Amino acid sequence: QIRKELLAIEPADIEEVISQFSSFEDQLRVFRLTDDTEKRAELLSLLEDDLKLKLTEKADPQEITSLIEEMASDDAADFLADLENDVLVKEILKHTETEFRQDITKLLSFDEESGGGIMTSELCAFPNNLTVKDVLNSLQPETLKDPVMYVYVIDSVSKHFLGAISLIDLIHADSDEKIGEIAEPSSIWASLDEDREKIAAKFRKYNLWVMPVLDHRNQIVGRITVDDILDISIEEADEDIAIMTGTSEAVSHDANLMEAIRLRLPWLVVTLLLALTNAFVIGHFLKSLDKFIVLAAFPTVIAAMGGNTGMQSATVFIRELALEKILPEEFSSLVLRETLSGFLMGIVCGLIAALIAYIGIPILYGETSHLNPFILAKIIFFSVCFGMTSASLIGTLIPISLRKWGLDPAVAAGPFVTTMNDILSSFIYFFIATTLLKVFL
Amino acid sequence: QIRKELLAIEPADIEEVISQFSSFEDQLRVFRLTDDTEKRAELLSLLEDDLKLKLTEKADPQEITSLIEEMASDDAADFLADLENDVLVKEILKHTETEFRQDITKLLSFDEESGGGIMTSELCAFPNNLTVKDVLNSLQPETLKDPVMYVYVIDSVSKHFLGAISLIDLIHADSDEKIGEIAEPSSIWASLDEDREKIAAKFRKYNLWVMPVLDHRNQIVGRITVDDILDISIEEADEDIAIMTGTSEAVSHDANLMEAIRLRLPWLVVTLLLALTNAFVIGHFLKSLDKFIVLAAFPTVIAAMGGNTGMQSATVFIRELALEKILPEEFSSLVLRETLSGFLMGIVCGLIAALIAYIGIPILYGETSHLNPFILAKIIFFSVCFGMTSASLIGTLIPISLRKWGLDPAVAAGPFVTTMNDILSSFIYFFIATTLLKVFL
Ligand SMILES: [Mg+2]
Ligand SMILES: [Mg+2]
Ligand SMILES: [Mg+2]
Ligand SMILES: [Mg+2]
Ligand SMILES: [Mg+2]
Ligand SMILES: [Mg+2]
Ligand SMILES: [Mg+2]
Ligand SMILES: [Mg+2]
Ligand SMILES: [Mg+2]
Ligand SMILES: [Mg+2]
Ligand SMILES: [Mg+2]
Ligand SMILES: [Mg+2]
Ligand SMILES: [Mg+2]
Repeated sequence: QIRKELLAIEPADIEEVISQFSSFEDQLRVFRLTDDTEKRAELLSLLEDDLKLKLTEKADPQEITSLIEEMASDDAADFLADLENDVLVKEILKHTETEFRQDITKLLSFDEESGGGIMTSELCAFPNNLTVKDVLNSLQPETLKDPVMYVYVIDSVSKHFLGAISLIDLIHADSDEKIGEIAEPSSIWASLDEDREKIAAKFRKYNLWVMPVLDHRNQIVGRITVDDILDISIEEADEDIAIMTGTSEAVSHDANLMEAIRLRLPWLVVTLLLALTNAFVIGHFLKSLDKFIVLAAFPTVIAAMGGNTGMQSATVFIRELALEKILPEEFSSLVLRETLSGFLMGIVCGLIAALIAYIGIPILYGETSHLNPFILAKIIFFSVCFGMTSASLIGTLIPISLRKWGLDPAVAAGPFVTTMNDILSSFIYFFIATTLLKVFL
Repeated sequence: QIRKELLAIEPADIEEVISQFSSFEDQLRVFRLTDDTEKRAELLSLLEDDLKLKLTEKADPQEITSLIEEMASDDAADFLADLENDVLVKEILKHTETEFRQDITKLLSFDEESGGGIMTSELCAFPNNLTVKDVLNSLQPETLKDPVMYVYVIDSVSKHFLGAISLIDLIHADSDEKIGEIAEPSSIWASLDEDREKIAAKFRKYNLWVMPVLDHRNQIVGRITVDDILDISIEEADEDIAIMTGTSEAVSHDANLMEAIRLRLPWLVVTLLLALTNAFVIGHFLKSLDKFIVLAAFPTVIAAMGGNTGMQSATVFIRELALEKILPEEFSSLVLRETLSGFLMGIVCGLIAALIAYIGIPILYGETSHLNPFILAKIIFFSVCFGMTSASLIGTLIPISLRKWGLDPAVAAGPFVTTMNDILSSFIYFFIATTLLKVFL
């Protein structure tokens, strides 16, 4: 009964059921209920990494082998990589067919974040001297696990990639025509070592569903499918968000407590040390200014405003650099624009803050503040304005510099840079305060 | 010469060229160089909104009409919506064919973020009593602008949606078989009013490339394609990031200065008012504690640590709520886990901070601090630990509550909530300080 229902539902739904069980025996039982090999293979590739390993160790190697051969080659390679156990992987591959083994070994050799690392080897490619009828007769749907939209055409002699024909055009073409005549030449393809983020950007720009991968000899070696690009785009966005918010990688809600702490605590300790540095900077200045204790109330304002402005500037750059939307020749004009916008917004915010302090502080402190409210207002205006300007400048310069040095621009919005900015803002504030007090007193 | 090269390059590349020109005349000239109607239509749909409007006002209505009829219906509807000019839209639609006009008017009536708002009306659907041969002969590729992967099968009497056949299976099927026999029934489809984020989550979960849209009578009315889902997923991720970093919507790097300021300044002013409130809270407490000026150095530490921890907790919830990965029944255990992790990390960070203050403050202040360094260390330990715990609790409770109230959870990591937390942390700090000082002095 249950078995029959499982046949009708999708592997992704079964995986959800499995992840709700906590005992391995129950998980195994649900896994075994899925009779259909194809679905079972898909289910296997969807499991959590630790469950993949446990199940593989437990199961008959022959069974795992047959399930892996049922997967698309990219999923099979990813599955084996997820096991993180070379001995086990060799053992499993030993039992597979030679051609499959070679494909997978090849795929496993590519960088995970490159074109080779995200492509699948299965594709339909035919020499340009075949006719439409030949191709329609020799299409073998069952060997392809991912959807087919195009057949690719290669040169019959050089094997170079020539172009693609969509299935619907193929159905409509004159059946005696040579496919070389009707193939649409395309200049959009990925190379084996191209970064996956760049490839994803091309998919979005050209509204692609599938992209051929060519090696350095111009021969087609695989194809990248849009379902994987969708996952990659989300992963990359979440990675940016994780870095911005200070976790080494995206923490999932079902990561366990200790795992979450392990990923987060290091960042927190680093920012703690910086925050304490800031405390000592503030403490140092207050020691000599202790007659004007009212000054101690405002470092947080300058830090908060600088932090928020810098974050806004950094975010634009981080995401648009990641999405390949900014050209290097635009850098300097963009830095200028952001800094100018920080300055203009700084004037507005500085005026508001100065006005409120000018009115509010005498009410709160009365005669005890020892500080002319007009001087306080001036200090606050200049430090908010200057703090916001410098935060905008830094918020754009740091992502660009990080990108130039080959680092991830997202770090610029992370807690490390943010807390460094807090320290800078304390210096700005107290520098302006001591300067103005010297002038006026 | 240039014209010939433009024929070979993609509309998305031509759009890039156009966006580099600043004068409308130059932009128009490049636009007119594209001879091919299909490419020109695609180019038109890719232009910036203000350029779309300018061009439409300038051009012969007949020309715009013919270009729009060349677009996929979803793109045509989006184009008209982007004009934001009802008179102009009516004028353009008047000249189009009746069926097309009805389709577009229908599409424009749906919420932009719903299944109806992101679907295209063109699809291949055939009654179940047709044979494979009938279908292969009546497929009309030229009427479909998006790629075709499936033909849909509907009941010949009730017109209810029955299932789909992939083109490759259709090619392989026995040509006299009824398509009703070979259609794969599917339970995965979108409804007209389903939220686009939910639909995108299904695409990812089931690795889909295209999804049928059914109306309330179970009839197929359109289909959603994965290229649009890819754009939507990126848009939604960037929207989350924009809200987290305090801009009303994602600011693009090529937004002009005033536009960027308009989107950002309101948030900054709101947080400024909150930051000033915090300054007055700090000032209020310091007034009565002014013997212990050393206490004034540490509010930023408690605020920074609470801010960073709360941000980490909130991020997990915001993104996983957005990606439909958290089930409501998991809420309470997740809140518990996050709070516990905040507490444990708070103990570690609190101990480090207390130790450093215990050693560092006597060095910085010597005898002038008037405060036993052991009491200071205690104040700092308890306020860091308690501040981080409460920040974790709030960081999880707020996104969940916002979701329950139908608001966007991303607001929880935004500057408003963050600055509110700064105020709370000041209260926590000074509450603990005054309590411990009362006990020990
Ligand atoms: Mg993996
Ligand atoms: Mg891979
Ligand atoms: Mg990357
Ligand atoms: Mg697109
Ligand atoms: Mg794949
Ligand atoms: Mg990245
Ligand atoms: Mg902060
Ligand atoms: Mg639009
Ligand atoms: Mg639309
Ligand atoms: Mg939405
Ligand atoms: Mg997927
Ligand atoms: Mg579309
Ligand atoms: Mg959203």
